[in-house]
Amino acid sequence: MKVAILAHELFPDGAKTAVGVMRYGGYDVTAVLDRENAGDRVRDHIDLPDAPIVASMDEVERCDALLIGIAPIGGGFEDSWREDVRTALSRGCDVISGLHYFLTEDEEFVRLAAENDCELWDVREPHDDLGVSEGIAADVDADVVLTVGTDCSVGKMTATLELVDAAKEAGVDAGFIPTGQTGIMIDGWGNPIDRVISDFTAGAVEEMIVEKGDEHDVLFVEGQGSIVHPAYSAVTCGILHGAMADRLVLCHEEGKEVIHGYESFSLPSIPTYVDLYEDLARPVHEAEVVAGMLNTRYVDEDAAAHEAVEAYAEAAGVPATDPVRFGAEEVLEAVL
Amino acid sequence: MKVAILAHELFPDGAKTAVGVMRYGGYDVTAVLDRENAGDRVRDHIDLPDAPIVASMDEVERCDALLIGIAPIGGGFEDSWREDVRTALSRGCDVISGLHYFLTEDEEFVRLAAENDCELWDVREPHDDLGVSEGIAADVDADVVLTVGTDCSVGKMTATLELVDAAKEAGVDAGFIPTGQTGIMIDGWGNPIDRVISDFTAGAVEEMIVEKGDEHDVLFVEGQGSIVHPAYSAVTCGILHGAMADRLVLCHEEGKEVIHGYESFSLPSIPTYVDLYEDLARPVHEAEVVAGMLNTRYVDEDAAAHEAVEAYAEAAGVPATDPVRFGAEEVLEAVL
Repeated sequence: MKVAILAHELFPDGAKTAVGVMRYGGYDVTAVLDRENAGDRVRDHIDLPDAPIVASMDEVERCDALLIGIAPIGGGFEDSWREDVRTALSRGCDVISGLHYFLTEDEEFVRLAAENDCELWDVREPHDDLGVSEGIAADVDADVVLTVGTDCSVGKMTATLELVDAAKEAGVDAGFIPTGQTGIMIDGWGNPIDRVISDFTAGAVEEMIVEKGDEHDVLFVEGQGSIVHPAYSAVTCGILHGAMADRLVLCHEEGKEVIHGYESFSLPSIPTYVDLYEDLARPVHEAEVVAGMLNTRYVDEDAAAHEAVEAYAEAAGVPATDPVRFGAEEVLEAVL
Repeated sequence: MKVAILAHELFPDGAKTAVGVMRYGGYDVTAVLDRENAGDRVRDHIDLPDAPIVASMDEVERCDALLIGIAPIGGGFEDSWREDVRTALSRGCDVISGLHYFLTEDEEFVRLAAENDCELWDVREPHDDLGVSEGIAADVDADVVLTVGTDCSVGKMTATLELVDAAKEAGVDAGFIPTGQTGIMIDGWGNPIDRVISDFTAGAVEEMIVEKGDEHDVLFVEGQGSIVHPAYSAVTCGILHGAMADRLVLCHEEGKEVIHGYESFSLPSIPTYVDLYEDLARPVHEAEVVAGMLNTRYVDEDAAAHEAVEAYAEAAGVPATDPVRFGAEEVLEAVL
């Protein structure tokens, strides 16, 4: 499917969803919309499959869908994007969005979509049949590996997708379980765990494990948040118990010392995280931290990044890697 | 306010909400609706303020509101209750419900309520302005005490309310923070934490602490679920971190060995619970388990109950009591 990705004024550094979809999604990206960088090419900014950067939907030549690739704090819809969505729908393109603001509740978009026979896909809208967990995720045939983190935005989704790729490369029948909007856009399905009713948090994860668990030998579940996050730990805990993971992969970002956006909260030590995740998992389903993933994006030199990974491996007591810089295959044996 | 409480075929043992509201709510209960026990009195069954038990709303003489005091698994509305709700609304009575099924989405009830100028209060419907936690609950003046549990339905709400009463009795300015439908009905306000969007779990608790935290010297927060519950641990974790409690009170039921409804999951040991709750709380806000509450409802003899409480206190390493049988004041000093 040919898609244009909307990332006005934020591509690439502030456009986590756009970059994730471009790196890991199966889409053919024909253009990026960013009025600030219009005229440049993607490759001028970041090492991803190349495409033109344009100012508006009018300049996109071919496209089956427009994908909203950025999310302001709060997940609202910026009115400066309206003309692009209008143009897309008028041309018969579907629109894919992971915003908290649902396009399917916008009268104009609903009308335009109906008139032009195209679809609005609100990735973050949970389906209606979710329920409480039955505690049966561990009954599936597949082994379940879950990425857990020291904070939000340390690279859990990336680590998970790199592990899936490395496992497939090694001939393992591996599946991906998406739990957040970018992961869902990339894989084309999934439950947005941060948006379900809190009582159904574990159940919404379990449902996905049960659905895919007999189709693959290993499932890699995308984790969310952190078990010590002042705001999001509920989601993390629900995923941990709902997935009933057999093995955990601890994700961290080099140099991070406080919770992002909650700077008065210090991160505990890496061994403390290992103990917390294992101790909390145990009464529901025993799980061991078997590998570490360190995001070294802010470390310039490879040698320094390598040292950081080694120190992290020692602190966590397991093999570690930076999956983007050095490859996930470095820890694959420990994970499988 | 004069209320009639609907508890058909389940009063009192299967009617947790009805009994909780009758024991702790400020309502003047004029009748209980239970077609199976019609003709009896409340006192024939349980030690609560007395009232007639009647078969239907037609037999209720005086009442300002009908309160739904039972909840089938799944929280649906039983059609056999419809005539009672109809009668109540036709007589101008409000209707209060904690079901997952919202009365305000039932066309007939909405119409009848409008025609008779009365209100439908769906206790379990979260308000629209909830958001993510800011990590500021600890900034309030009040000390915050949270009840945590080894499982659902072990008596956390009862323990919390008994502590509030014991504290007030001792001259302490104590407030109650309700987090579930029965607690909300009892106190007339509160956020139904199990029903909010998972990302807002901690935030919905924090909002209440911030609202009441400068009005009282101590806040007692009603806990939910258990941190090792296969389905509901997300809610428990969100409350733990959102409340940023200073002290925890561990609630348990004597003789309980497995998770209710999830019998393949054994409870860990009491010291394991103490460690888990304290270790998980610490990175967000240090909290210590300072007292234990043991529900001995299935222990016949007081002497045996006393022994059970002593053994529990020893296992938890803190003073303990059964707040209903022996009084919460037994542990008040440890809690304050």
